[in-house]
Amino acid sequence: MTASSRSEHDLLGDRDVPADAYWGVHTLRATENFPITGTPICAYPHLIDALAAVKEAAAVANAELGLLEPAKAAVIVAACQEIRGGELHDQFVVDVIQGGAGTSTNMNANEVIANRALELLGHTKGDYRRLHPNEDVNLGQSTNDVYPTAVRIATVFAVRGLLDAMAVLQSTFAHKAAEFHDVLKMGRTQLQDAVPMTLGQEFSAFAVMLDEDRSRLAEALGLIHEINLGATAIGTGLNAPAGYAEAARRHLADITGLPLVTAPDLVEATQDCGAFVQMSGVLKRIAVKLSKTCNDLRLLSSGPRAGLGEINLPPVQAGSSIMPGKVNPVIPEVVNQVAFEVIGNDITITMAAEAGQLQLNAFEPIILHSLSKSITHLRAACLALAERCVSGITANTEMLRATVENSIGLVTALNPHIGYTAATDIAKEALASGRGVAELVLERGLLPAEQLTALLRPEVIAGTGPART
Amino acid sequence: MTASSRSEHDLLGDRDVPADAYWGVHTLRATENFPITGTPICAYPHLIDALAAVKEAAAVANAELGLLEPAKAAVIVAACQEIRGGELHDQFVVDVIQGGAGTSTNMNANEVIANRALELLGHTKGDYRRLHPNEDVNLGQSTNDVYPTAVRIATVFAVRGLLDAMAVLQSTFAHKAAEFHDVLKMGRTQLQDAVPMTLGQEFSAFAVMLDEDRSRLAEALGLIHEINLGATAIGTGLNAPAGYAEAARRHLADITGLPLVTAPDLVEATQDCGAFVQMSGVLKRIAVKLSKTCNDLRLLSSGPRAGLGEINLPPVQAGSSIMPGKVNPVIPEVVNQVAFEVIGNDITITMAAEAGQLQLNAFEPIILHSLSKSITHLRAACLALAERCVSGITANTEMLRATVENSIGLVTALNPHIGYTAATDIAKEALASGRGVAELVLERGLLPAEQLTALLRPEVIAGTGPART
Amino acid sequence: MTASSRSEHDLLGDRDVPADAYWGVHTLRATENFPITGTPICAYPHLIDALAAVKEAAAVANAELGLLEPAKAAVIVAACQEIRGGELHDQFVVDVIQGGAGTSTNMNANEVIANRALELLGHTKGDYRRLHPNEDVNLGQSTNDVYPTAVRIATVFAVRGLLDAMAVLQSTFAHKAAEFHDVLKMGRTQLQDAVPMTLGQEFSAFAVMLDEDRSRLAEALGLIHEINLGATAIGTGLNAPAGYAEAARRHLADITGLPLVTAPDLVEATQDCGAFVQMSGVLKRIAVKLSKTCNDLRLLSSGPRAGLGEINLPPVQAGSSIMPGKVNPVIPEVVNQVAFEVIGNDITITMAAEAGQLQLNAFEPIILHSLSKSITHLRAACLALAERCVSGITANTEMLRATVENSIGLVTALNPHIGYTAATDIAKEALASGRGVAELVLERGLLPAEQLTALLRPEVIAGTGPART
Amino acid sequence: MTASSRSEHDLLGDRDVPADAYWGVHTLRATENFPITGTPICAYPHLIDALAAVKEAAAVANAELGLLEPAKAAVIVAACQEIRGGELHDQFVVDVIQGGAGTSTNMNANEVIANRALELLGHTKGDYRRLHPNEDVNLGQSTNDVYPTAVRIATVFAVRGLLDAMAVLQSTFAHKAAEFHDVLKMGRTQLQDAVPMTLGQEFSAFAVMLDEDRSRLAEALGLIHEINLGATAIGTGLNAPAGYAEAARRHLADITGLPLVTAPDLVEATQDCGAFVQMSGVLKRIAVKLSKTCNDLRLLSSGPRAGLGEINLPPVQAGSSIMPGKVNPVIPEVVNQVAFEVIGNDITITMAAEAGQLQLNAFEPIILHSLSKSITHLRAACLALAERCVSGITANTEMLRATVENSIGLVTALNPHIGYTAATDIAKEALASGRGVAELVLERGLLPAEQLTALLRPEVIAGTGPART
Repeated sequence: MTASSRSEHDLLGDRDVPADAYWGVHTLRATENFPITGTPICAYPHLIDALAAVKEAAAVANAELGLLEPAKAAVIVAACQEIRGGELHDQFVVDVIQGGAGTSTNMNANEVIANRALELLGHTKGDYRRLHPNEDVNLGQSTNDVYPTAVRIATVFAVRGLLDAMAVLQSTFAHKAAEFHDVLKMGRTQLQDAVPMTLGQEFSAFAVMLDEDRSRLAEALGLIHEINLGATAIGTGLNAPAGYAEAARRHLADITGLPLVTAPDLVEATQDCGAFVQMSGVLKRIAVKLSKTCNDLRLLSSGPRAGLGEINLPPVQAGSSIMPGKVNPVIPEVVNQVAFEVIGNDITITMAAEAGQLQLNAFEPIILHSLSKSITHLRAACLALAERCVSGITANTEMLRATVENSIGLVTALNPHIGYTAATDIAKEALASGRGVAELVLERGLLPAEQLTALLRPEVIAGTGPART
Repeated sequence: MTASSRSEHDLLGDRDVPADAYWGVHTLRATENFPITGTPICAYPHLIDALAAVKEAAAVANAELGLLEPAKAAVIVAACQEIRGGELHDQFVVDVIQGGAGTSTNMNANEVIANRALELLGHTKGDYRRLHPNEDVNLGQSTNDVYPTAVRIATVFAVRGLLDAMAVLQSTFAHKAAEFHDVLKMGRTQLQDAVPMTLGQEFSAFAVMLDEDRSRLAEALGLIHEINLGATAIGTGLNAPAGYAEAARRHLADITGLPLVTAPDLVEATQDCGAFVQMSGVLKRIAVKLSKTCNDLRLLSSGPRAGLGEINLPPVQAGSSIMPGKVNPVIPEVVNQVAFEVIGNDITITMAAEAGQLQLNAFEPIILHSLSKSITHLRAACLALAERCVSGITANTEMLRATVENSIGLVTALNPHIGYTAATDIAKEALASGRGVAELVLERGLLPAEQLTALLRPEVIAGTGPART
Repeated sequence: MTASSRSEHDLLGDRDVPADAYWGVHTLRATENFPITGTPICAYPHLIDALAAVKEAAAVANAELGLLEPAKAAVIVAACQEIRGGELHDQFVVDVIQGGAGTSTNMNANEVIANRALELLGHTKGDYRRLHPNEDVNLGQSTNDVYPTAVRIATVFAVRGLLDAMAVLQSTFAHKAAEFHDVLKMGRTQLQDAVPMTLGQEFSAFAVMLDEDRSRLAEALGLIHEINLGATAIGTGLNAPAGYAEAARRHLADITGLPLVTAPDLVEATQDCGAFVQMSGVLKRIAVKLSKTCNDLRLLSSGPRAGLGEINLPPVQAGSSIMPGKVNPVIPEVVNQVAFEVIGNDITITMAAEAGQLQLNAFEPIILHSLSKSITHLRAACLALAERCVSGITANTEMLRATVENSIGLVTALNPHIGYTAATDIAKEALASGRGVAELVLERGLLPAEQLTALLRPEVIAGTGPART
Repeated sequence: MTASSRSEHDLLGDRDVPADAYWGVHTLRATENFPITGTPICAYPHLIDALAAVKEAAAVANAELGLLEPAKAAVIVAACQEIRGGELHDQFVVDVIQGGAGTSTNMNANEVIANRALELLGHTKGDYRRLHPNEDVNLGQSTNDVYPTAVRIATVFAVRGLLDAMAVLQSTFAHKAAEFHDVLKMGRTQLQDAVPMTLGQEFSAFAVMLDEDRSRLAEALGLIHEINLGATAIGTGLNAPAGYAEAARRHLADITGLPLVTAPDLVEATQDCGAFVQMSGVLKRIAVKLSKTCNDLRLLSSGPRAGLGEINLPPVQAGSSIMPGKVNPVIPEVVNQVAFEVIGNDITITMAAEAGQLQLNAFEPIILHSLSKSITHLRAACLALAERCVSGITANTEMLRATVENSIGLVTALNPHIGYTAATDIAKEALASGRGVAELVLERGLLPAEQLTALLRPEVIAGTGPART
């Protein structure tokens, strides 16, 4: 041990730790054991804050129950509050992908909090006889209840950010839907011309999808509020005295402002990752629809001359290093890629959840990692799509109307009046001859001109007149 | 055309159809176009019944609105009721994997119903001038509203069967949990001995998981009751007169007994597969947990002599063609495999949903196919697991108790009394020496014998005394 | 036991079996234990034939080694040959999804072969004292070597069918590429107009992709020829005498005509599903590219009036129950769906392979099931695509050439002559004004007319002149 | 523009760039457009080096062909060599998840190289009239050939690192296999006791699996050496003069030392991601088997008292914050999690590849991102597993031998001598009574004692005597 380090002891022996490190020997070993991604857990600030909140709640509960000296509790609480205020995050250094069911993350928190608390008490770091990472900071706790609880709280705050971003995107689509309310266009099924609609209807559908997805996300978020604090090692509550679970939950709810509830069966709750699988499934659903929406935007804006050319996405950067003037749909493209990532993450989470054994799932770290990426990347993608793409979309209104008037799909509206069989003949001839539906109907005397004109008014066909249903 | 066939006509020309076939030219072409799996859609009886229910509801609504002659409506209704009674299912012959967004399935239904209705009117099959598959049976409808509506109704009935099977399995686990209420055993985290619990707690957790999954499934099922009947081609309701959507919904709700509601935005509803993605995501969650449960059952019953040997699964068949007397956990194994299939199906559904374009998703047939397999196979797996495995499980009670008494994990209970650091030393020595925790604690004089005995009572450790939380 | 049944005995006791059934008590219990899909294993004729081939090879090897009486061997061989000739397949009745690592499939084969062999000897079915399913038909074997070996042989024959179908599709694309050799069109990147090319180049790329995929598939197929026959239960070869593994392999190679090799490490080979994971990965690759190809075909044929309208797919059925004259790309759509299924199957296979434990993977039945579907459905999809779609595609040549001449992308060809910056200005103005690239270049005096004309010759731009590389 | 910035111009207008930035306006816009992950592309040093190598090769080829002034080529080459030497990596700042098919990455490289080259020429950064990112650095290139080529080169170097790490792990397992050559143990199938084997055989199988996987990986790596440099925008080679593709490839091969080949069909090669899908499929295969191996290690080391307890993993950190003395299999657990991530990444890559349209796949950035993570995390996982776990494994030899001697599975070895039926009876009685197989056989007089002893010698049963096959 040099002047710049201190010695710490654990089950495996003694190790030197840098003197200025708030983390200790458990964290040291973990950083050596898991050199996987190079990304430390402080990359998830929500998680660090949540860990501090859990430790704070536990300290207060333990003090209330007379298990922890008030002086110790006070400095633990102070250290936790500093962390929740953004301090010391750089001391959370274990890798985001780690073995051990989150033990290293929990021990990293225990050590940082203990050492900061020791400082606040006027002691030196590492003087654990006075305040101990396990015996004081982790009192009445186990990684197996602390870690899942913290992951859940972190997830709640992350998802709230996503919900907000989705609301922004929904609202942006809704504004565009209003703007395009009267823009007639051909609807398409199976990429083939179908029947007329408005561009407003098309954009409104994008907004409605987001609204439904937000409801599903909020629903899944509800399940995340159920915590297993007090379960300790396997859910039997060993070493957590009567009253502890409820006290800790209550304080944690106060600290976080979240309506947390304790799971009714703590043995089940301690091994179960169902709420994360559900959350990831909903994120996947959101990804699927965002991707579909972006596919549509890219398709509708294809061109400028050899594509559908219905809408124009705002240019946000030059599109090509070789093709001058080319502008590409880069924002929808990046959203598509986030969607593909989210769908892949869902498989990772699925496998990790399935791999749980007996009283614990040892693979929550990769669940947290995958879930965090899905949520934060989706959030960034929604905002980019809203602000850098959808808000600037314009429509090629005249071209769209001309396409409707020239379409064969108009004949569908005549079905009830001339029958499917006759309408099919008209459609076939229109396609073969390049002629219009209306002139062929008149030529064959199938309908009087006046009635035909009335039936073929695009506004009528698009159903944007009086509601039908 | 021979005596044993009739000629039918469509957009592409004339084709001979077997005289006794209720299906017609559209179905004929579809069977030729999609020779993929060899499995016809009548493999999903719920779907056939649902199609008939939709057609019946549409006919009644059309008659009510004066669009369809009462005589035609009457025979269409009669034909549909026959189908719902189990008749004519063998006439639904198009392949389960088909292009065309379900058009071939819808046309198969239109043709079968039309021809049966023609017979009921005393006409010959194929005499479509009198009653037409498109103009009468499909009146006011499109594949794009009929098919998704039928898929949803079929899904509701299939999922109800799954919910029932899950309830059976849950109840079977709950009964076992009661039976094993007093069986002490070691709990394990990360496959390492942790702290004591009861086998009842372990089995109870399996029951609780199923209970939660049933809640999620019921929640997802709710979304499936939203239909888009009346949307016609793209959701604008073209050719569906005012009042039709509501009338058809009302009749369909009556016929099926389901609380169906019409989607508020039919354009969105017609292109959106979100409810199926959600449903599949929940099925995947169920699969994940069932698989984890079966992994545990297989692990706990490993042996008989070189395994954990905690429980015995009832033998249901000889296990080996070469190893005499070997009995394998074949029922959990088959459940695992169903789970893997369901997880794969979820990816298929995800990709199919993502691939939807503009006003329609053309890939609902593979969604239906994958969803149907997931639901029906999970149902069969739950019942097999309940009836052929869980109900006959027995526990090796004596061995389990001995393992608890011999365990090092007992030392965890002494943490609050001797501290984590001292407890770690005891654990290390116990492991190295093979000695017991209690004798080492006494030898070191860490606790008086009486207190030690009280603290180490397994029932206390397992938390099966008075509730703590 | 009634007149119409016989009694059979196993580890669990006595059971009545239908008198005319060739299968016995083991099969009976398996059908009761696994009521999952309703599809019996005879749905895979390649597997039934392969099982018979393995049993035949084993019998000949055992006779050669003096372990099986020649008379017994002769009737076992005869029974196997009948099965390989297509007889008795309906006796293979266990479900395709089954627990037990294939034991039930192996026992089904042992029983059917034994009972047919007994008949050939003039005995009654079930008289196993004279010829026994385990002691004679399964002699020197275990499910754990027989089943994987049979699955591999079945896979080889199935994949050969797929390779042939891919060759047909490749050749069909190549013919179209030749037909479209001179059809100029705009190439697109990111759905935006890029630079000119020919439709022949586009279709040639589809053919080349298939050619590469066929190479990968053949490569993966090579690995499948490695078998573990002789491994018996766990790869140690217990109960298989010296010389048996090699003799059985040699006879099996003769019977099947396949260049089979015995795995160098039988313990490894018995637990390893790597070759199936690899095969499924390649099938997924094929699916990905087929799906991309079909997406392109659907996109290029979108319209007829509001789409890209570059090519026309041959109509194979009416496209809509409500929109007269509508024709949809149903064949590419069904291929897309098969691709989605294959990608889902790959996840199922991945999870099943990962779930193997210690000396065996118990989940090969779902691997077989998923792999079989992937292979046979891809084969059907390739043939349908070739014969019902690609072979009938026509090009809208005039429209395509006009689009090229009108394109802004032409300016890219001027980069080396006027610079990227000037070219960007031209492109911007062309887009804003709707004017042509050539007239703007001339107007600005950037290039002499003659040189410009030479540079903009589409054939030059499309690179279909002398090869550049 | 302030003193600390310079103004740059692109298609969309003017923007200020920090004066000391080597990147320019295109990079600036990209960083604004893609605020997704916060991780810049310099997180992949192999990619940055590969981009520099491609640019260097292109400059040399262009100079050779007389298209680029030697003085410009010289400084471009010098700048590229600095980058390949590790300089300027911090200037590669665009996000790893980005739209635009890699254009932003390519432009980032073009700008950094141009500005460093300008400096080397004695000019100020941004003075592009003298040396231009597009017209000089990107001369004869397009993102669509540069980017995939660079991704492939980066992948080759990354995969080589993985191959080395796998070799280390394989060798570590092989050493352990030798060490455990004589350690008898029970083999297990379906988690049930099967027949004896040695621990050496078990560990050897782990080594053999890795050896096979290395072969597959090397095979897949071969495909990655095929590049499309010279294809330019869509594969037609527009703006790349005759001889360029071959010259650039030759120089790139020299610079990198890799046996690169130009794809025979550049149109196909430019749109095809098949080689990446194949690579990811093989990585997934490796992940599956590594995960299975780690599952086995965790299972075999379960205990210490209530598990299988066959082997001991070396303790590398304390296992629990609450359970004193507990040591967990944290290294295998982290490897499992990497495997789950790789399997998820494969789905991401699959979806991205499938989403390619027409002449380009716009989603290569997420393919690169996912592939890079899979390769580098697998490498770290293999090394951690070898060095921190496998190398320190010890066996509980005495306990293992006792389990063999006590096993019922021994009876399998008697099959050929007493028959499957009699052996089944012995097994049943042994299980029911708890007695040994040998004593029961002797008691029933089924075999003479001497023969029995010889047959039951575990070494014989484990097949570790003379090879059988």
